[in-house]
Amino acid sequence: MWDVAEQDLGPISIGAAILGAGGGGNPYIGRLRVREALRRGQRVTVISPAELADDDMVAVCGGMGSPVVAYEKLPRGDEETTALREVEKALGRPVTAIAPFEMGGGNSMAPMVVAAAAGVPLVDGDGMGRAFPELQMTTYVIYGAPPCPSAIADERGNTLVFTAVADARWLERMARAVTVSMGGHAGVATSPMPGMLCRQVIIPRTLTLARDIGAAVAEAVRSKSEPCDAVLSVTGGTRYLRGKVVDVERRNTKGFARGSLTVDGTGPDVGRRIRIDFQNENLILWEDEKPRATVPDLISLITTDRGEPLTTELVSYGCRTDVLIMPCADLLRTEQALRVVGPRSFGFGIDPVLIARPAGASVPEAG
Amino acid sequence: MWDVAEQDLGPISIGAAILGAGGGGNPYIGRLRVREALRRGQRVTVISPAELADDDMVAVCGGMGSPVVAYEKLPRGDEETTALREVEKALGRPVTAIAPFEMGGGNSMAPMVVAAAAGVPLVDGDGMGRAFPELQMTTYVIYGAPPCPSAIADERGNTLVFTAVADARWLERMARAVTVSMGGHAGVATSPMPGMLCRQVIIPRTLTLARDIGAAVAEAVRSKSEPCDAVLSVTGGTRYLRGKVVDVERRNTKGFARGSLTVDGTGPDVGRRIRIDFQNENLILWEDEKPRATVPDLISLITTDRGEPLTTELVSYGCRTDVLIMPCADLLRTEQALRVVGPRSFGFGIDPVLIARPAGASVPEAG
Repeated sequence: MWDVAEQDLGPISIGAAILGAGGGGNPYIGRLRVREALRRGQRVTVISPAELADDDMVAVCGGMGSPVVAYEKLPRGDEETTALREVEKALGRPVTAIAPFEMGGGNSMAPMVVAAAAGVPLVDGDGMGRAFPELQMTTYVIYGAPPCPSAIADERGNTLVFTAVADARWLERMARAVTVSMGGHAGVATSPMPGMLCRQVIIPRTLTLARDIGAAVAEAVRSKSEPCDAVLSVTGGTRYLRGKVVDVERRNTKGFARGSLTVDGTGPDVGRRIRIDFQNENLILWEDEKPRATVPDLISLITTDRGEPLTTELVSYGCRTDVLIMPCADLLRTEQALRVVGPRSFGFGIDPVLIARPAGASVPEAG
Repeated sequence: MWDVAEQDLGPISIGAAILGAGGGGNPYIGRLRVREALRRGQRVTVISPAELADDDMVAVCGGMGSPVVAYEKLPRGDEETTALREVEKALGRPVTAIAPFEMGGGNSMAPMVVAAAAGVPLVDGDGMGRAFPELQMTTYVIYGAPPCPSAIADERGNTLVFTAVADARWLERMARAVTVSMGGHAGVATSPMPGMLCRQVIIPRTLTLARDIGAAVAEAVRSKSEPCDAVLSVTGGTRYLRGKVVDVERRNTKGFARGSLTVDGTGPDVGRRIRIDFQNENLILWEDEKPRATVPDLISLITTDRGEPLTTELVSYGCRTDVLIMPCADLLRTEQALRVVGPRSFGFGIDPVLIARPAGASVPEAG
C-alpha cells in the first residue's frame, strides 16, 4: 500500500503512456486534476491486488473514445465519477476499490481522479498491461468479469447505464456509438466484480511499473544516457529500430483514430523502413511486407533524445524516435485472450508475432 | 373507458397509419402480438386522459428507428416492456398507465403490447397526433415532461437506461446512435410523468380517432364510395391531389428513412406534379417549387381504391394515390411547439404552411 505523491504523477504518466503502446490518451488534464486533488488533501491510496478482500466490490474506470478528440475536447473531470455512482446505484451497493481500465497517459490518471473523489483505494494493476482500443479487450472481461452494469457519462451531464447486454462486444458497440454521439470522448465505469475475482484476472503491479519506467527515463535524461535502454531495462523487450517518422496517415472514424505511420531507419538502421498500423494503439509493425511484431505485444514509439512517448494522436512527420517492442503480460498470451486481442480481432489475417517474456534483449519468435 | 377488441385492431392500425403521415412503422407484427395477447385473455383497457389520477405515473412507449429496418428486422415483442421495467426501476415506483408515443401503424400497436403485458391501462391519446421522426418532438416533452429516466431495449436483451440528459435533443441524439448500433430498431420507454401533467400535454382521443378513421375507410370500401372522402370526413382537411407515384428516392441514413417522392396528377389533376420530402414521415409538399403544406400538418398518401396508407417505407413507383393534407392538433400550433416541429427543425428554411382547424374542406392559408 502506498499513497500517490505529487512527484509520482510525472513518472506515472510518462511510464503509462509508454506502456500505452501509442494509445491511452493525453495525461495532461488528468494529471492537473489529480494534483489539485492531492493539494486539497484528498488521497490516492494504491493497494496491491493481494490486499483486496474477497467481498470488496471493484469497478473499472477510464476514458473512452478517440485520443485525437480527447486532446481537444477537454473533460469536465467528473465523468468517470458520475459513471461510477450510476454503477453503484444499479448494483445497489457501494464500490470499495477502483481498478484502471488500461495503462496509458490519460487512463492512468482518470482512475486516480475517481479514487480521490470517491475516497476508495486504487488497485495497482489494470486490465491490459498496456492500452487497447475496445472495451471487451480487458483481462477482466476475458476471464469472467460481468460487462454490466456499466455506465457512461459526458461533460454535459448526459449519463446512461447499461443494465443488460448480450455480451461485452455488444457493450463496446453500443457504448462506442454513444461516445461518438457525445462528441467522441466520455467517462466509463464498467466490469463491477468482487475482490476475489479481481485478484485473479487483473494484470498486477502495472501502476508501479509505470512509475518505475517514468523514473528510469527521467534518470536517463539527467545522466545523458539512452532513455530507450532505461525503458527496456524495466520492461524487457527490444529496440526494433531507431529512425525518423516520414509519414503519418490518420483518420478519426467511428470513434477511433485509425491509420498508419512510416519510420525510416537512421544511424545503424539507415536504409530500413517500417510501417505501423494503428487503431488508437499501435497494432502491427511491418517490415518488408512481413509482420515483425503484433498485438498483444507492445509497440511503442518514444523520442530518441528525451524518451517521451509519441502517442498516435501526437506523432508527426520528422519525429526522431526509438521504436520499442515490449512483451505483453502472460494473461494476454492464452488462447482465450488471443482470440480477443490478437491480430485477427483487429481485422488482420495473420497470427500473433510475440517476443519471449521475460526478455531483456529478445528477438521475435516468428515472422 | 373501453376495452380493445380483436376487431378493433384492423381499423386502429389502418387509421393510425393514415395519421402517421407516412411514418410510424409497420403494424403487422404488433397487431398479431396484440391479437395473441387478447386471445390469451389479457386486456387492453383504454382510458381517456381525464380518467388519469393526479398521482398516476404515466410512461410513454413505442418503437424507435427507421421503418425501413423495422419492416425486415422483426422485433421479439417485449422490447418496450423491458424498457418500461427499467424506467420503473430507475424511478423506484411502478408505472400505472401507458401512453403512446405517436400515432402510426407500428406505434399504435406497440403500446398495446406493453399495456397488455404490464396489466395497466392505455391512455387514449399520444404526443404527436401523428408521427414524427425524433424523440423530442412530442407534446409531452415540449410542454414539460422529463426526458429521464428513459430506457431502450433490443431483441437481443441489450438494455440501457438514460438516467440524466442535458435535454431531450441530447436524448434523441444518443438514443438514435444506440438504436443504429442495435441494428436500426429498438423499443423505448420515456417521459415518465404524473397523471396531472399527462392530462394537460397529451393530444387526446387519437386512438379513438384512429379507430374511427379505419372504420370509415372500411365502410367506404364496402359501399364503393371514396375512401379519401371517408377519411377527411373524420379528420378534416383536404385532398390536395389525386395521382400516381412516378418516383421515389429513399436512403436509409443515420437511423432514418430519408428521401423524396414525386406524384403526377391524374384525372382532374392531370398536368400537375408535386414532390414530397420525407424523414420517416412526410415533411413538406412542394408544387411549382413552393411549399404547399408542411409539418406539423399531416401529409398522408392513401391508395385511391382501398384507402390503404402508403407509408414512406412502402410507397413505390406506380402507386395510385390520393394525397391528403390534414390539420395538426392545436397543441402543435403554438410558437413553442413550432420551434420543435416546424419546417426549420427539419432543416428547411421556410415557415410553416398550415391549414385551418377544424376544416372540412379548407385550403392552405399561405404559400
